[in-house]
Amino acid sequence: MIVALAGGVGAARMLGGLVTIADPAGITAVVNTGDDTRLHGLHISPDLDTVTYTLAGVINPETGWGLTGETWAAMEELRTYSGGRLGWFNLGDRDLGTHLYRTTRMEEGASLSAVTAEIAARWGVAVRIVPMSDHRVETRVVIVEPDGREQEVGFQDYFVGRHHDVPVRAIRLVGVETAVAAPEVLPAIAAADGIVICPSNPIVSVGPVLATGAIGAAVAARRKRVVAVSPIVAGKALKGPADHMLTELGHEASVVGVARLWSPFAATLVIDEADAGLAAEVRAAGMRPVVTPTVMSGPTEAAALARTVLDAMADPAAAG
Amino acid sequence: MIVALAGGVGAARMLGGLVTIADPAGITAVVNTGDDTRLHGLHISPDLDTVTYTLAGVINPETGWGLTGETWAAMEELRTYSGGRLGWFNLGDRDLGTHLYRTTRMEEGASLSAVTAEIAARWGVAVRIVPMSDHRVETRVVIVEPDGREQEVGFQDYFVGRHHDVPVRAIRLVGVETAVAAPEVLPAIAAADGIVICPSNPIVSVGPVLATGAIGAAVAARRKRVVAVSPIVAGKALKGPADHMLTELGHEASVVGVARLWSPFAATLVIDEADAGLAAEVRAAGMRPVVTPTVMSGPTEAAALARTVLDAMADPAAAG
Repeated sequence: MIVALAGGVGAARMLGGLVTIADPAGITAVVNTGDDTRLHGLHISPDLDTVTYTLAGVINPETGWGLTGETWAAMEELRTYSGGRLGWFNLGDRDLGTHLYRTTRMEEGASLSAVTAEIAARWGVAVRIVPMSDHRVETRVVIVEPDGREQEVGFQDYFVGRHHDVPVRAIRLVGVETAVAAPEVLPAIAAADGIVICPSNPIVSVGPVLATGAIGAAVAARRKRVVAVSPIVAGKALKGPADHMLTELGHEASVVGVARLWSPFAATLVIDEADAGLAAEVRAAGMRPVVTPTVMSGPTEAAALARTVLDAMADPAAAG
Repeated sequence: MIVALAGGVGAARMLGGLVTIADPAGITAVVNTGDDTRLHGLHISPDLDTVTYTLAGVINPETGWGLTGETWAAMEELRTYSGGRLGWFNLGDRDLGTHLYRTTRMEEGASLSAVTAEIAARWGVAVRIVPMSDHRVETRVVIVEPDGREQEVGFQDYFVGRHHDVPVRAIRLVGVETAVAAPEVLPAIAAADGIVICPSNPIVSVGPVLATGAIGAAVAARRKRVVAVSPIVAGKALKGPADHMLTELGHEASVVGVARLWSPFAATLVIDEADAGLAAEVRAAGMRPVVTPTVMSGPTEAAALARTVLDAMADPAAAG
């Protein structure tokens, strides 16, 4: 039994590697829902969908989100109606079916956990995909606009609407004070043989998961069995704004900065060979460094990384 | 200046005839919104869309609703997710763009009137299309299920979901007690040179319009200038359940039954040649009968019918 704390693209690739070497039915992915948004009346869960579509093999390989073979008729109309003001959050026609279904089921009273399981079942995904919470935790971003003005915006306004191309002053998790973990989360963490923190943005992907309800405490209680994979390689995020964001929020954009953030939760940090020289500093930050190629450029690389993660889990005694 | 009280398909055809012989910019269509529904998180206004799409020349000619050249990717996914339970209210991918836009604008605080005008402008429709109300008036139908049980359902559950193929015991207009006419409605009725009640279902299309706020009273005050077109021809509705519904609710499914319903509001009733033999009874019910071909099988027939309607408006002195 393995639990994976997951954001979007990086986590989906990590899970894609894990399922090639471990029984998918024994894997539980606890997925960030801080990025969820209500748009055009629809409940959209980008990270859940990215994980589900990737594991189903139907993800759009070019974008890393959405479905393969999409058409865009609805969005084209929406852009025409609004003179281009709306439709910046691109939703394919097939993908809209997912959002229509989720929205309908939640209006019927189904929990996000239940709907997520239904969506995974429809795509034949054996991994148990669960949202971090059935309550709303909304990641909001205090940004600095080009004119110098600070403004708090929704995560997707920052990430997609502004192409995460503006400085970040702060992150707020609205609702996190009262949200609890989804029903399957804490039992899965308690029962897991090992837990992997996927190479996702520490601030806005893994951060909301660890901050919600008792998830962080439950993970910390299993610290020796927790293996994290650094999303930062040679000081850069492979995808997204994690490097900028770490710096802007007073952290170090390096595996050492990541180690300082994750050391309370995970005993082991898998870092890329490019960062081998920082292994001692990772250890000084309280994590056992494991050096290996971490860039998942294809299924082979993802499987090899997953093997390293499982091996580290199986050898917890070495963890500090 | 002409005002048309409108339901869906029959009204859209009538308006299509009117615009060929009168200045479209001088026509105001006051459209039933009792059929509106909230489905999958989206605000759907079937009659408004049917009128708009028809006048724009983009209506699907086979169905009488929705857009031409549609694709159905979102609905196919929705049906797959739900094992066919959802998706019975068919929404094309382009059409979804309309519903996404309307929903978004209303969440932004725009009135249904404002959004309806924006949608009409996008399609280049010169007729002023206004909803009967910016408030929610919801047509609900008490039906008799096959097992004999009475049940109140939403209008689309009855009309689309059950193919209007079950007996109707009663109609309820939820919200009608407090709704007021949309801002443009009463001034347009007061200023109109003539008013046409389109050949729409008297109970569930025209009925909600006349029942909302002061619309019925305002129309009655202009009674001599009001020309209605019977939706019943030779005892049958050309489309939809109007004939059954009239009978089930204790009315006569004939031009005479229609005249009894509309006599308080309109001085003139245009009836089909097939009903020429009932002209005296229409007169006895309090309406001047005008006999003409009323079946709008194409643009020529629609234009001829519109001409008859305008002529009757221009000759109000003959009305009883």
